[in-house]
Amino acid sequence: MITAIRGVRCYGIKEGRNGLGVVVCSGKVAGVFTENRFKAAPVLVTQEHVKGGEIEGIIVNSGNANAFTGERGIENARRMAELLAKKLEVDVRKIAVASTGVIGVQLDMEWIESRFEVVFSKLGTGEKHSLSFARAIMTTDSFPKQSVVRTDDFTIAGVAKGAGMIAPNMATMLAFIFTDADFGVKDLNEMLRNAVNRSFNVTVVDGDTSTNDMVLLVSTGEKVVDRNIFERKLTDLCIDLAKMIARDGEGATKLMEVRIRGAKSDEEAFKASKVVASSLLVKTAVFGNDPNWGRIIAALGYSGVEVSEKLDLSLEGFRNGKSVGRVELVKNGKSTMEEDVARKIMENSDEIVFEINLKVGDGRGYAFGCDLSYEYVRINSEYTT
Amino acid sequence: MITAIRGVRCYGIKEGRNGLGVVVCSGKVAGVFTENRFKAAPVLVTQEHVKGGEIEGIIVNSGNANAFTGERGIENARRMAELLAKKLEVDVRKIAVASTGVIGVQLDMEWIESRFEVVFSKLGTGEKHSLSFARAIMTTDSFPKQSVVRTDDFTIAGVAKGAGMIAPNMATMLAFIFTDADFGVKDLNEMLRNAVNRSFNVTVVDGDTSTNDMVLLVSTGEKVVDRNIFERKLTDLCIDLAKMIARDGEGATKLMEVRIRGAKSDEEAFKASKVVASSLLVKTAVFGNDPNWGRIIAALGYSGVEVSEKLDLSLEGFRNGKSVGRVELVKNGKSTMEEDVARKIMENSDEIVFEINLKVGDGRGYAFGCDLSYEYVRINSEYTT
Repeated sequence: MITAIRGVRCYGIKEGRNGLGVVVCSGKVAGVFTENRFKAAPVLVTQEHVKGGEIEGIIVNSGNANAFTGERGIENARRMAELLAKKLEVDVRKIAVASTGVIGVQLDMEWIESRFEVVFSKLGTGEKHSLSFARAIMTTDSFPKQSVVRTDDFTIAGVAKGAGMIAPNMATMLAFIFTDADFGVKDLNEMLRNAVNRSFNVTVVDGDTSTNDMVLLVSTGEKVVDRNIFERKLTDLCIDLAKMIARDGEGATKLMEVRIRGAKSDEEAFKASKVVASSLLVKTAVFGNDPNWGRIIAALGYSGVEVSEKLDLSLEGFRNGKSVGRVELVKNGKSTMEEDVARKIMENSDEIVFEINLKVGDGRGYAFGCDLSYEYVRINSEYTT
Repeated sequence: MITAIRGVRCYGIKEGRNGLGVVVCSGKVAGVFTENRFKAAPVLVTQEHVKGGEIEGIIVNSGNANAFTGERGIENARRMAELLAKKLEVDVRKIAVASTGVIGVQLDMEWIESRFEVVFSKLGTGEKHSLSFARAIMTTDSFPKQSVVRTDDFTIAGVAKGAGMIAPNMATMLAFIFTDADFGVKDLNEMLRNAVNRSFNVTVVDGDTSTNDMVLLVSTGEKVVDRNIFERKLTDLCIDLAKMIARDGEGATKLMEVRIRGAKSDEEAFKASKVVASSLLVKTAVFGNDPNWGRIIAALGYSGVEVSEKLDLSLEGFRNGKSVGRVELVKNGKSTMEEDVARKIMENSDEIVFEINLKVGDGRGYAFGCDLSYEYVRINSEYTT
């Protein structure tokens, strides 16, 4: 829960598809934003605001992405920020605003303004306040996503919403992370970028990059800590949230993790991992409990990275975090003919890990994904007004 | 039918999942091959053989890709070529060999050798001979794919198999094209590469690049013709075959065409078209008859090409090649609110064309694809031994 960090107060409500959440927290801020050319209005506004490096609060709505909404969209995003700025009596540029939901429809500002009063009046520091905020920003997410990492010296706590879509809309990934560790804005931005590259950016649900993706890191600056340790823990927390997002991918029945070693470089290992986790053929095979290593080999082959024909490939299955078995499928480029064993492991697992040794170097990387099911097609093909 | 070209004799048989086809034809040859790092044995052998620029025949099996099969796979591919070379009493390097089917399993050479005699004895120049070859190379294709382009001066005829998979296998695209037009090997290679780039290479079923893809162009050299005209007609023929492949994508109910103009360059237009046609969100929306332009906008946004917020986007539906209606969805960056009209058009169509004007230049491009249905998931997730 994000209220694990002293100074964080929050609350949120959900009414049907619409949600509104507010976090109040003074500190320094860093942000990573979608690279989509059509950035939603709240992304443009927040990018501008966080340049100052200082933050007092965050306001988020769900149900409407405020994307592809032109000048009026920008004005509405600013009005959302102003609502909170006025209450807190701070410069509007110290407020971040985020949205997730339908594209191309103007915000219902009347609803937002009226509900803002309710939400603001209920801000608090309890577990339930954190949970209400986590729920308020959900769209087709099936569970709220929160994670906390504690060390003797500092705490990091984050909340996220996943790459779920509500027809006729876009997937959006939002994450808000808070810490009592003290760093300058430049350090915060560097560490956040690195952590995002090794977590959310290697997480694939359907490969579509939203107009609204945003990750913010807020430091209340209470504690002076070691940068290396902090960056590692921040990455751990982002990976934890990213895995929740992959597991909760629309229609997903299994979390998939691809771990590659022996690549020419870490960069190549991450790249190849992501290509495998993105392959529709691999995703459907995982859904069907089919240990189809030929599809993984083919995906490695077109990933563009250097590979050896003598590669090793193994599969491990987990249920509720516990291993239910591990089996080698390919050893020195040859099939071990263990498909039957592998299929049984897959049937009993809710998480599948493919470990691959490319045998051309020392590079390591990984990616997270999920299977592709009938339910994914249903959710995304059914027209809803 | 490929027997429209004088000098082409062919035949093929299909027994269950296995197929064997042979084409005999003397001429010059050009080839384009998969860029997958794990090239199947027949690809490696044929790439080597066509370097000589001369060809006497082609032998193709379906049901087994002879991919990831090591040294023995290479030997078997050579043995296939030798079967035909011996019968024709020609250098084995003038024989092309291709395979499509399961990965990682050795060829059943006994079956191939015994059936080869039957196939060779039945070679002919009729329509039925061409059709039997087209059927022999099919895997999960639901119909044979042949196309002929005739002008007063020359004829081009091609046969293809589509991006269908048979579990636990890989998609493979094969195309064999024949012409009586006379060109040098260098010209043939250039023209084939250009035509493939504007047809098969902008066709997306699931985005997975097979270990076995191969396109060959054979010229019998009878007629001297204009290069520009020939290249245009060759591209037309390849587009015709590519659209058949997209329409026959696994589980596909609709052909999708994305046409972009107003891009910064042709290259950017082709790139953005392919990104839109590859988007799972767009593919599922087409399956659900959902005119979800927000997903197209988002895909354009992450395609990496330059775009204007004032873009236009329209949809046209076709049934059996005839237009059933056209509607603008976005005009100058604003929704026209015509979703209901668009949905009706989609419901009545078996082909959907999205026309997009990016309004930043004069570049034009296009891509072909298909929708993503429950049937795709079923075909690719059901384990089959």
